[in-house]
Amino acid sequence: MFGPIQEDGKVRFRLWAPYCNEVKLRLNGSTYAMAKDERGYHEVELNAKEGDNYTFLTDLGEVPDPASRYQPGGVHERSQLTSREFPWEDEGFKPSKNNLIIYELHVGTFSKEGTFNGVISKLDYLSDLGVTALELMPVAQFPGNRGWGYDGVYLYAVQNSYGGPQGLKRLVNEAHKRGLSVILDVVYNHVGPEGNYMIKLGPYFSEKYKTPWGLTFNYDDRGSDEVRRFVLENVKYWIDEFHIDGFRLDAVHAIFDSSPKHILEEIAEVAHSRGRFVIAESDLNDPRIVNDKERCGYGIDSQWVDDFHHSVHAYLTGERDGFYMDFGELRDISKALTDTFVYDGRYSKFRGKTHGRPINLPGGSFVIYIQDHDMVGNRGGGERLISLIDKDAYMIAAALYLLSPFIPMIFMGEEYGERNPFLYFSDFSDPKLIEGVREGRKRENGQVRDPQSEETFLSSKLSFEVDQEILDTYKRLIEIRKRFLDHERDLKVVVGEDWMILIKKRLLMMFAFKNSEIAVDQRGDLLLSSNPSFPPKLVSGRYRLSKGFGVYLTSRGSNA
Amino acid sequence: MFGPIQEDGKVRFRLWAPYCNEVKLRLNGSTYAMAKDERGYHEVELNAKEGDNYTFLTDLGEVPDPASRYQPGGVHERSQLTSREFPWEDEGFKPSKNNLIIYELHVGTFSKEGTFNGVISKLDYLSDLGVTALELMPVAQFPGNRGWGYDGVYLYAVQNSYGGPQGLKRLVNEAHKRGLSVILDVVYNHVGPEGNYMIKLGPYFSEKYKTPWGLTFNYDDRGSDEVRRFVLENVKYWIDEFHIDGFRLDAVHAIFDSSPKHILEEIAEVAHSRGRFVIAESDLNDPRIVNDKERCGYGIDSQWVDDFHHSVHAYLTGERDGFYMDFGELRDISKALTDTFVYDGRYSKFRGKTHGRPINLPGGSFVIYIQDHDMVGNRGGGERLISLIDKDAYMIAAALYLLSPFIPMIFMGEEYGERNPFLYFSDFSDPKLIEGVREGRKRENGQVRDPQSEETFLSSKLSFEVDQEILDTYKRLIEIRKRFLDHERDLKVVVGEDWMILIKKRLLMMFAFKNSEIAVDQRGDLLLSSNPSFPPKLVSGRYRLSKGFGVYLTSRGSNA
Repeated sequence: MFGPIQEDGKVRFRLWAPYCNEVKLRLNGSTYAMAKDERGYHEVELNAKEGDNYTFLTDLGEVPDPASRYQPGGVHERSQLTSREFPWEDEGFKPSKNNLIIYELHVGTFSKEGTFNGVISKLDYLSDLGVTALELMPVAQFPGNRGWGYDGVYLYAVQNSYGGPQGLKRLVNEAHKRGLSVILDVVYNHVGPEGNYMIKLGPYFSEKYKTPWGLTFNYDDRGSDEVRRFVLENVKYWIDEFHIDGFRLDAVHAIFDSSPKHILEEIAEVAHSRGRFVIAESDLNDPRIVNDKERCGYGIDSQWVDDFHHSVHAYLTGERDGFYMDFGELRDISKALTDTFVYDGRYSKFRGKTHGRPINLPGGSFVIYIQDHDMVGNRGGGERLISLIDKDAYMIAAALYLLSPFIPMIFMGEEYGERNPFLYFSDFSDPKLIEGVREGRKRENGQVRDPQSEETFLSSKLSFEVDQEILDTYKRLIEIRKRFLDHERDLKVVVGEDWMILIKKRLLMMFAFKNSEIAVDQRGDLLLSSNPSFPPKLVSGRYRLSKGFGVYLTSRGSNA
Repeated sequence: MFGPIQEDGKVRFRLWAPYCNEVKLRLNGSTYAMAKDERGYHEVELNAKEGDNYTFLTDLGEVPDPASRYQPGGVHERSQLTSREFPWEDEGFKPSKNNLIIYELHVGTFSKEGTFNGVISKLDYLSDLGVTALELMPVAQFPGNRGWGYDGVYLYAVQNSYGGPQGLKRLVNEAHKRGLSVILDVVYNHVGPEGNYMIKLGPYFSEKYKTPWGLTFNYDDRGSDEVRRFVLENVKYWIDEFHIDGFRLDAVHAIFDSSPKHILEEIAEVAHSRGRFVIAESDLNDPRIVNDKERCGYGIDSQWVDDFHHSVHAYLTGERDGFYMDFGELRDISKALTDTFVYDGRYSKFRGKTHGRPINLPGGSFVIYIQDHDMVGNRGGGERLISLIDKDAYMIAAALYLLSPFIPMIFMGEEYGERNPFLYFSDFSDPKLIEGVREGRKRENGQVRDPQSEETFLSSKLSFEVDQEILDTYKRLIEIRKRFLDHERDLKVVVGEDWMILIKKRLLMMFAFKNSEIAVDQRGDLLLSSNPSFPPKLVSGRYRLSKGFGVYLTSRGSNA
C-alpha cells in the first residue's frame, strides 16, 4: 500500500524509496526513524491525526509524500493527513456504463468559483440537460492554482485549489444523489515537469521509453512491480475512497509496457472487479485497446475516437491544417459513423505512415465528440466550434454525434453555444519552465496569450451566456437519443453530395450540409429540426431543405 | 524495393532518403541526377554491371547505399553491384522446421580461414555429427574484419571478410546438398554504432525507444511504412537470393512497435508465406511471441529459452552471479523441462520484478542450449562449459538437453569439448568507440583481454582438438533423439535430491548429478551411458550409480 494508512488512531506511513538508504518521517516538527524492507519500502507506525503535516527526510533530501492524499500548500510543500470519513448519501446509486452521455468539464473554469463546490452548484443544470455522467479533467495535484491538470505530480492528492479531497467527495456524493456518474480523467503515462519528487526516490520512471510531455512510468523494468502497484492502487483508491464510477485514461498510446500482461489490461481488471468502467484516450486506432481478451484486447470499455471529430471538424470548417489534412470529405464522416476508424489501415499524410486497423464493435465501445479540451484548447486562440462555423452547421454537428451509435461527450459550454475561448493555462513556479511553456505554446500551437497569466485562465471560464435555441436543441436531442437510440451498429447511411441520411431503429435523420434537394421514400413525423424547411410530415418525394437537420420518427420501424 | 535492382543489363538505383532534397548517383566516377518521389525515394535507372562501384552524393554528404548488396572495402567505402546469378544445385532440398537440431556457429572463428569456404570444408563433419541445421551468427556487413556481427550496419550486404554474397550462396548451396538447413541470425532491433549512414538520410530510427546497444528502428512513427518495408524486404531477400531456410531474430525484446500489427507478426508472415520459419531470441518469457494468432500471439515458430540454460548452468557450476542468482535448484531444471519458463509469473531477484507468464506449447516452439555465443562470450574469460565443470557433469548436461522435448542447439565446438575460449572481439576504427568498448567489456563483463586486439579474435577460433568420448556421446545422443523422441510434451519427470529420471515415449533417462542410489521399477535395455555404473539391463530395484547418465529403451513403451 502506498501513502499513509489510518486505522484506529494509528497511522502507518510508508514510502517506496529503494534509492534511499535511510528515511525519517518528519511529523509536526518531530522526526521518527523508518524501517526499510527488501523491496525498498520505508515504514513507521505512529499516533497521528487528520490535519497533521509531514515530510520524509531522506539521505537524498527532504520530500513530501509521493502518495500524499493532500497537499494544502501545493506540490512543493508538506503533505497533510486527511480524514477518510465522509457522510456518504449515495447508497441508492449504481454506476453503469450503459447509454452514457458524458459531459467533460474542467473544474477550474467551469464555474466562477473554479472549485468542486462551484460544480455542485450547477449539478441541477446538468441533470436537467440530460447528461448521465460528468467527466472531470484531472484533479490530481498539479503545480500552482491553475492548470489543465495533465501536469499532475501527486496521483493520490486532490488539487488543493479545487477544494481538496473532501471537496471531491462532496461533488461525487451530490452527483450520485442526482443520478449522475462521475468519471475521472487520470494520467498514467507521465508526470509533470514540476514538483516530481519521486524521481530521486526509486525507479518510478522508464529509462527505455520517452513521451513528448515528460518522464513516463516504469511499467516493465526493475522495480516495476511497485510502480504498477502504485498505479493499480490508485485506481482502487479513487473508487473506494471517492466513489468514482469510471476512468478516462489519458493518452494510452504513451503508456509503454512490454510485460506479458499490459498495465492497461490490469487497470481494466481492477476497475471491472469493482463494477466500474474504463475509457481510454487512444491515438493508435488499434482494436487491441477495446477488444475483449478473447479478441486479444485489453478489455477496456471504450475509447475516444478522434477520427470522428476530425472528419466533422474538417468538413464543416474547411480547415486542412495539421491533422485535419487527412480529413475533409463527407465520406470521412460516413466512414466514421459506419466503421468507427476512418484510418483503419490507410496511409495518413499527416502521420507520414499507414495508420490503424479495422475494428468492429458496438457503439458503446467508442466515445465521440465535436469538441473536447484538446481540440479547442490546442488551437492558438482556444476557439470553440461555435466561433468557427455558423449556427446551422453547429446544429448539424450536434445532431450528428448526439444521435450516433457512439457514446457522445459534450465539452462544457458547448450545449448552449459558449463563446469564451478555452486556452492553455498554467501556474508553474520555475522560471525556465514558464518560459519553455510560453515559447512551446506559441511555436507549436500558435497561442499568443501567455499561458502563465491569470488573465488567460480567467478568460477561459464559462460565461454561461446561454443561446437558448442551442440549449433547447441539445436537450431535445438528448431526449430523442435516450428514447429511441442505442449502441447497436444498425445505422444505415446514405450519402449525397452535400447531404446525408441516417436511418437507425425508428429514426430517420436528414442532414443538409448546404441548402439541398433530397429525395426520400419514407414516411415519418418530425421530432426535431433545426429550421422550418423540414416538413412536419415526411412522405415519399423530393424536398428542398435549408442547411440544417431534421429527425423523423418513421412508421416502418427498424426495417426501413 | 530497397537497393539496386538489376534487370536486363539495366540497374535501377534507389535510395530512401526523405531528409535529402537532392541526391546524385556517383557511379564509376560519373554522377547522375536522381528523381525524388513524395515518399522520399530517390531513383535513377542506368546501364551498369556487376563489379561497378557507387555511392550517393546527397546534400547531407556522400554515403554508401544503406541497402548495398556488397561493401568490398567495408562499412565506410563504396558499394558494389554484385551478380544475382548463382549455379544453384539445391532443387531437391526442402526447408523444414520439423525436428530441428541446430548448430550455432560464428563464421570468423569456426574455421582457420574464418570464411564461408572454411565452413564449407566442415560441412561433412557437421552432417556426420547429425545436426540438421546450421545457424550462422550475423553476416550483415559490420565494421572491420572481426566481430560477432551484432554491430552490423548494412542489412543487405554480406560481410566482406567472410567471402561476400557469393560466398554465402556457395555455403547455403553446399549445406542444402547435404540436407542441412541454414538459419540466419538477423538483427532488426538496432544497428551498430559505426558506419551507420542511414541516420542522416531519413527517420530510420525511433525517437521514442532506446536499446542498450544503440539506435533502434522506427517501426511505428513517421516514415515507418518504409522502415518496415526495409526490414520485411530484407527477410524476403535472404530467402529469395540466398535460399535461407530460417531466421533467428536477435533480441526481440528490444524491438518496440506500438502499431496495431507488430512487426514481428509481419516478419513471421513473410517467412511463412515462403515456407520458411522464424526463431526469436526473447528475454520476456512472454507467450505472445510464439503463440499463434488465435492465442493472440505473433505466430513466431520458436523462441530461445534462457531459463533452461540458466537452470542447468547454475545447478552444475554452482555459480550464482548476475542472472544465475535466480537459479540453482534442481527443481528449476525440472520446471524448465515440464513448464518451459521457470519464471512464469514469479518474482525475479535479478530483474527486481515479477517476470514471465505461463506458456503451454509443444517442445518445437522452444530452442534450448547449454551454451551459446552470449552465455560463453559474455563471461570475462569467454570460458566454455567444459572449463567450468567436470566431464561427467558435462555429459549429463549434453544428454539432458539433447534428449529433451525442445529443439536443441549446439554451440560450435561444444560437441567435442572445445576448450578455447569464445571472447568478445571487434574491429572498429573509431578510437573513441574502441576505448568505450574496451572499458565497457572490462567493467560489465570482466573481460580483461582487449576486444579490439586480433589476438583475442584468433584465440577464440576453434582448435578442433577433439575429445573423442564427448564427440561420440554427442553423435549417439543425436541418433537416439532422432530415432525415439519428438516434441510432444509427454515427458514425465521424477526428481530426487541429486538425481532425476525422465520418461518420454519408450525412453527412460537417468541422471545422477552426484554418485546416487536410485530406485527404479522399470525394465529396459541400455542404449547409452556416460559411465559403466549404469547396468546394461534395467530391472526393478535399487542402483548405485556414479555421476553420469544412462538412457534405456523400456519394454513397456510410452505407458511407462
